[in-house]
Amino acid sequence: MSGVAGASDAARIGPDRLSLNQATVKHLSLAEAVALCVRHDIPAIGLWRDRVAEAGLAEAAATVRAAGLRVSSLCRGGFFTVAEPDARRAALADNLAALAEAAELGADTLVLVSGGLPPGQRDLGLARRMIADAIGSLVPEARRLGVRLGIEPVHPMFCADRSVIASLGEAIDLAAQFPADAVGVVVDTYHVWWDARLAVDIARASGRIVGFQVCDWVLPLPRDIMLGRGHVGDGVIDFGPVSAAVTAAGYHGYVEVEIFNADVWAAPADQTATKVRERFAAIC
Amino acid sequence: MSGVAGASDAARIGPDRLSLNQATVKHLSLAEAVALCVRHDIPAIGLWRDRVAEAGLAEAAATVRAAGLRVSSLCRGGFFTVAEPDARRAALADNLAALAEAAELGADTLVLVSGGLPPGQRDLGLARRMIADAIGSLVPEARRLGVRLGIEPVHPMFCADRSVIASLGEAIDLAAQFPADAVGVVVDTYHVWWDARLAVDIARASGRIVGFQVCDWVLPLPRDIMLGRGHVGDGVIDFGPVSAAVTAAGYHGYVEVEIFNADVWAAPADQTATKVRERFAAIC
Repeated sequence: MSGVAGASDAARIGPDRLSLNQATVKHLSLAEAVALCVRHDIPAIGLWRDRVAEAGLAEAAATVRAAGLRVSSLCRGGFFTVAEPDARRAALADNLAALAEAAELGADTLVLVSGGLPPGQRDLGLARRMIADAIGSLVPEARRLGVRLGIEPVHPMFCADRSVIASLGEAIDLAAQFPADAVGVVVDTYHVWWDARLAVDIARASGRIVGFQVCDWVLPLPRDIMLGRGHVGDGVIDFGPVSAAVTAAGYHGYVEVEIFNADVWAAPADQTATKVRERFAAIC
Repeated sequence: MSGVAGASDAARIGPDRLSLNQATVKHLSLAEAVALCVRHDIPAIGLWRDRVAEAGLAEAAATVRAAGLRVSSLCRGGFFTVAEPDARRAALADNLAALAEAAELGADTLVLVSGGLPPGQRDLGLARRMIADAIGSLVPEARRLGVRLGIEPVHPMFCADRSVIASLGEAIDLAAQFPADAVGVVVDTYHVWWDARLAVDIARASGRIVGFQVCDWVLPLPRDIMLGRGHVGDGVIDFGPVSAAVTAAGYHGYVEVEIFNADVWAAPADQTATKVRERFAAIC
C-alpha cells in the first residue's frame, strides 16, 4: 500500500503518549523490553502477565520503576466463559490475581479478553451473561486497588473462540452496567476499524475509554489469523479519524502499539522499536 | 461439536422452503445441479452467474423451468467500489447485465456483495458512498424488471477486500435509502451470527429481507478463510433464534444452503444433498 494515512494536526498525538506493548517484541524478556523502551525514548510499556511472572512480580515492578517507565496496561484478564464451577472459580481467582499484579505494577488498566462460546455451547446470550456476571464480581476489588478493567472488543472473526464481545458498541453497553471508575473499554484499531458505527460508538464511550491500542490490518491474513497484524501504515486502516475520535472522547492516556506478527517478532527488536516510533510520529 | 441446535416448532421452516445454492456443489454444471435438486426433492436453487453463462442464459432458464424449480436468487452482483471511470462504468454495466439475467431466470433476488476498499484507499466512508451511488443507479432497472437487489452484509473479516458493508444494521441503513420493492437485505448466518445487535436488526429489517442463507461457522478457519463454512449443525451457530427472528420479520421465502468448503466440494454431490436436506429438517 503506497502513501500513508496521516492524522490532522488537531488530532496529532505526541511521542510522549507512545507505549510499546510487550507483545510487539514477544521474544524479549521483561528486562530486555524495558531496556528497549529506554533506548528508544518510549515512555511507557504495556506488560504481559507471562513475562511479568517470568521476571517475578516484585522484580518486574522494580525494573519498570527504575527505568522511569509508566505501565499503560497489563495484558490480560478475562476468559470468563467457563461453566464448570471449579473452572469458573479458577478463572475468577486468576483475574483477582491479575488485578493485584496490575496494582503492584502501577498499571492503569487490566485489559480483558472476555472469552468465546463455552465449550459445547452455541448460546451467545449465555456467554455474554457469564461475562457480565464475572466482571461484576471483580468490580469491588478493582475499585479497592484503583485498577480499571478494560473490556476489549475483539474482531468478530474471534467471536467463537476468544471473545463474544465483538463490537465496541457491545463493549460499551456492557461497561455501562458498572461504575465508570472501575470498568471501561479498550479500543484496538485492529478489532474495530471495519465498524460503520465506530465514530458514533467512540463518542458514546466518552469517559469510558481506558486504553487505546494500534496496529494495522494487512492482507492477506496469514495461516494463523491471530498473527495478521502489521505496523501502523502497512495496511488499510485509516488511523487519523480513529485517533481524532478517541481524543475527542476525552482519552488522553498512552497509545499502545501492539503487533502480533511472526515477521515483526523475527526482526531485530531495535529495528522494530525504531519503526514503531517513526510510524507513530507519522501517522498517529 | 456434539448436540444439535434445533428450532422451536413455532419457528420451524418446512422442506418446501429449502433451496440449494449452487456454490454448495461448486463442481457441478447447472444442468447437474438442477438434476440433483430434482433427485433430492429440493424445490428451489440459488444460481451463480458463471455457471449460468457456461450453460447459456436461455438454456439455463429453460432447464430450471423444465425441472419445475424456482430460482431463489442469482449470485451475484456488486463489487461497486471502483473509482476509475471506465472500471466504474464496466461494473455498472455488469450489474445491469446481472439484473437482466435474474429477470430471465425468474430469480427473486440479485445478491449484492458490495466490494471492499478501493485499491490504494483507506476511506471506508468513500467506499460506502460509492456503493450507495451505484445501487441508486441500478434501482430504476431493478424496478422495471421486478428483480430485487439484495445487499448482503459480509463478515467483517472481509471488510478490506470484499465488502465494506459488514453488519446487518449497516445493510439495512443502506437499503432504507431506496424503495422497498427494489432494495432489501440478504441475511447469511455465517456473516452475521456474532452480532449482539442481530435480533434487533433482523426485526428492524422487517419487509426488507429478500434472502436468507444458512451455513455454519466451523473452527479452525482453513488457510483460505473464504472456505471455512460448514454444514448446518457442524459448527457453533445457533440457527433456531435466527430463523425465528427472520420469520417474525415477515420473510417467508426460500432458505438457501450455501457452503463454501473444499471438503464439501470434494464429497459426492448426492451425499451433500442428502446431508443438506437432513440438517435442514433437523435444525431450521
